[in-house]
Amino acid sequence: MKVAVFRKEHFNAAHRLYNPNWSDNENERVFGKCNNPNWHGHNYELIVKLVGEPDPDTGYVYDMKKLSDLIKQEVLEKFDHKNLNLDVPEFEKTNPTAENIVILIYNILREKIESRLDLKITLYETERNYVEYPAS
Amino acid sequence: MKVAVFRKEHFNAAHRLYNPNWSDNENERVFGKCNNPNWHGHNYELIVKLVGEPDPDTGYVYDMKKLSDLIKQEVLEKFDHKNLNLDVPEFEKTNPTAENIVILIYNILREKIESRLDLKITLYETERNYVEYPAS
Amino acid sequence: MKVAVFRKEHFNAAHRLYNPNWSDNENERVFGKCNNPNWHGHNYELIVKLVGEPDPDTGYVYDMKKLSDLIKQEVLEKFDHKNLNLDVPEFEKTNPTAENIVILIYNILREKIESRLDLKITLYETERNYVEYPAS
Amino acid sequence: MKVAVFRKEHFNAAHRLYNPNWSDNENERVFGKCNNPNWHGHNYELIVKLVGEPDPDTGYVYDMKKLSDLIKQEVLEKFDHKNLNLDVPEFEKTNPTAENIVILIYNILREKIESRLDLKITLYETERNYVEYPAS
Amino acid sequence: MKVAVFRKEHFNAAHRLYNPNWSDNENERVFGKCNNPNWHGHNYELIVKLVGEPDPDTGYVYDMKKLSDLIKQEVLEKFDHKNLNLDVPEFEKTNPTAENIVILIYNILREKIESRLDLKITLYETERNYVEYPAS
Amino acid sequence: MKVAVFRKEHFNAAHRLYNPNWSDNENERVFGKCNNPNWHGHNYELIVKLVGEPDPDTGYVYDMKKLSDLIKQEVLEKFDHKNLNLDVPEFEKTNPTAENIVILIYNILREKIESRLDLKITLYETERNYVEYPAS
Repeated sequence: MKVAVFRKEHFNAAHRLYNPNWSDNENERVFGKCNNPNWHGHNYELIVKLVGEPDPDTGYVYDMKKLSDLIKQEVLEKFDHKNLNLDVPEFEKTNPTAENIVILIYNILREKIESRLDLKITLYETERNYVEYPAS
Repeated sequence: MKVAVFRKEHFNAAHRLYNPNWSDNENERVFGKCNNPNWHGHNYELIVKLVGEPDPDTGYVYDMKKLSDLIKQEVLEKFDHKNLNLDVPEFEKTNPTAENIVILIYNILREKIESRLDLKITLYETERNYVEYPAS
Repeated sequence: MKVAVFRKEHFNAAHRLYNPNWSDNENERVFGKCNNPNWHGHNYELIVKLVGEPDPDTGYVYDMKKLSDLIKQEVLEKFDHKNLNLDVPEFEKTNPTAENIVILIYNILREKIESRLDLKITLYETERNYVEYPAS
Repeated sequence: MKVAVFRKEHFNAAHRLYNPNWSDNENERVFGKCNNPNWHGHNYELIVKLVGEPDPDTGYVYDMKKLSDLIKQEVLEKFDHKNLNLDVPEFEKTNPTAENIVILIYNILREKIESRLDLKITLYETERNYVEYPAS
Repeated sequence: MKVAVFRKEHFNAAHRLYNPNWSDNENERVFGKCNNPNWHGHNYELIVKLVGEPDPDTGYVYDMKKLSDLIKQEVLEKFDHKNLNLDVPEFEKTNPTAENIVILIYNILREKIESRLDLKITLYETERNYVEYPAS
Repeated sequence: MKVAVFRKEHFNAAHRLYNPNWSDNENERVFGKCNNPNWHGHNYELIVKLVGEPDPDTGYVYDMKKLSDLIKQEVLEKFDHKNLNLDVPEFEKTNPTAENIVILIYNILREKIESRLDLKITLYETERNYVEYPAS
């Protein structure tokens, strides 16, 4: 009798897409205007999904207030109003594509959420481009 | 060759979250402002998903007009502009959390939808908090 | 060179529409299911609009962080997770229709916002019903 | 370590629902106002989901610019500002219900997307009616 | 002490843009793919705004249920699931652009709404294209 | 018989808010996390409103395709995937707050739109913070 619960949060960040092992021309060819060396940015919308059985005493799978606080402390504190390439150590050598950001957010939260609960992250980079991890 | 079809409806309701076996302090600690004894309320958005093969004569998995009418008759009639704790008998002793509401809606509709069709319910309590049952 | 700035916030509340001077039948006839004596509720979306000249030093008409804090302190503290009829003294004898709520919010904020700034409030009761005061 | 990536596009089209083997009365009974012989229309929102492993050099499962161009060329060119019954040969004898449109879009794109990537299509006919293929 | 109240409704329709006094080439040049002789269509979102003083007994500027019923009877009945060019007599010789549709809806409702109330109509043809009449 | 027409576009950009004449402490105090020297960013949503009389031959106040092209050429080309402080000369000495961006966009488009048409710009920095110029 498992129920999924979802909490939506958001953060704003700057980033640049490029591969430091490639020439400027190659980066331009592959990443186009996302490769602007002066950065650009997004309003990221983040959805955290937990799956588990509701607690019989509370009727909660997870307290949404606690989940919101956890996301703020572990994710937004690290990403919000930041430059993903410069301010987030994990992206020093990894390209901050939506795919790599969603995997990092999953790994951060996976350690903080009890293992009895399944976890999935959805990340909107724009209203028209978004990603999900792990993929269903 | 199964296709999923989705129908979105909405209802407005009042509720209060608390466990009658607990002290006022314990209810306050766990449910915070959701425990207001004078109630609060939400615009609930409800999405009903059916999965099956399209009928070769109509091209429909299910007639959306019929599904909308069924949801109105079986769910909205019971929940819309109601107090979930006081007006819905199933919540006399069960806490009307989003998790428990979505399970009840599933159980109500599961009896009315042919068993050849899979059923899943998504329920938005706010734009930022929502639940799904059964969880995928 | 006046610019308008807008800040959106939300609160959840229960209410009931009725006129205590009328019979039950008359209240039922006029307010229909909104007259449920056990209450119902909404997710209210609130938009506060200020109009003024940007400050040349900051480029701000008003600091959005300060405006958000002001709305939280003066409006959400009073309305969020409350029963508008029972918990808000101004609605003891006034019907908490969207029209009357938006006028009250305007009056509360008008006292707290410098008079050099024009003020307008928009209040969504549902996605399909909303009000604005003062009307433009 | 599979990630899902999503791209949203839209198109506007006219259509009519009916079964040419049925009487006018039968079509009227089953399809109601969707059977208007003078057509009606929709703003369709289309979401294409691809599942695969991110490329270690780019951090992309798929270049969203390339996916957008592919959808424009293979799907929007064929459906946008068209009459689905008259202008799309596949619907000469097939009823253009949302179910049949989403299957056709899947079949068109499945041939153009590398087989290492899973594909799923979601199609909104209105904000309240939508379909998904293959169903999860 | 005037308050504005808004009600949102929607309808789906087919149409074609062209000027019968022009050559095919000229119509093609001006209206592009909107000139498809086989029609295309939209989900139109309609917002009706009324401005007036709230009634002291009800707290309503206008009963939203009555407004919704009026829009359904006078506007949706005429436009929903219709071909605007073929099924709406007013567009026999007038091009059904969003501008001309919004003026027609205003004229229809203006006759049915008490003159003490100001009226404005907003019409979304797509999420990205919309019109308002009278213009403020 | 004036009608307003609206066109919505979007761009993504990085920026930083600060006043170069102030100390780091003062900038931190006033602009908070928006003052991150490594930048942050947003998905900006832009709405351009034109007011005029519909042309009797076309039924258009303005061709939306032409308006979209004009916005792309004059505004998006300059702002999209850019760093507003570094890549937009007008913000070399002006703080790129939403207020200052919306005034700049107005000034750019005002020169390109016939003077018979009124112009207003709305700019969303996030879903909850937006601005309008000139203010109505």
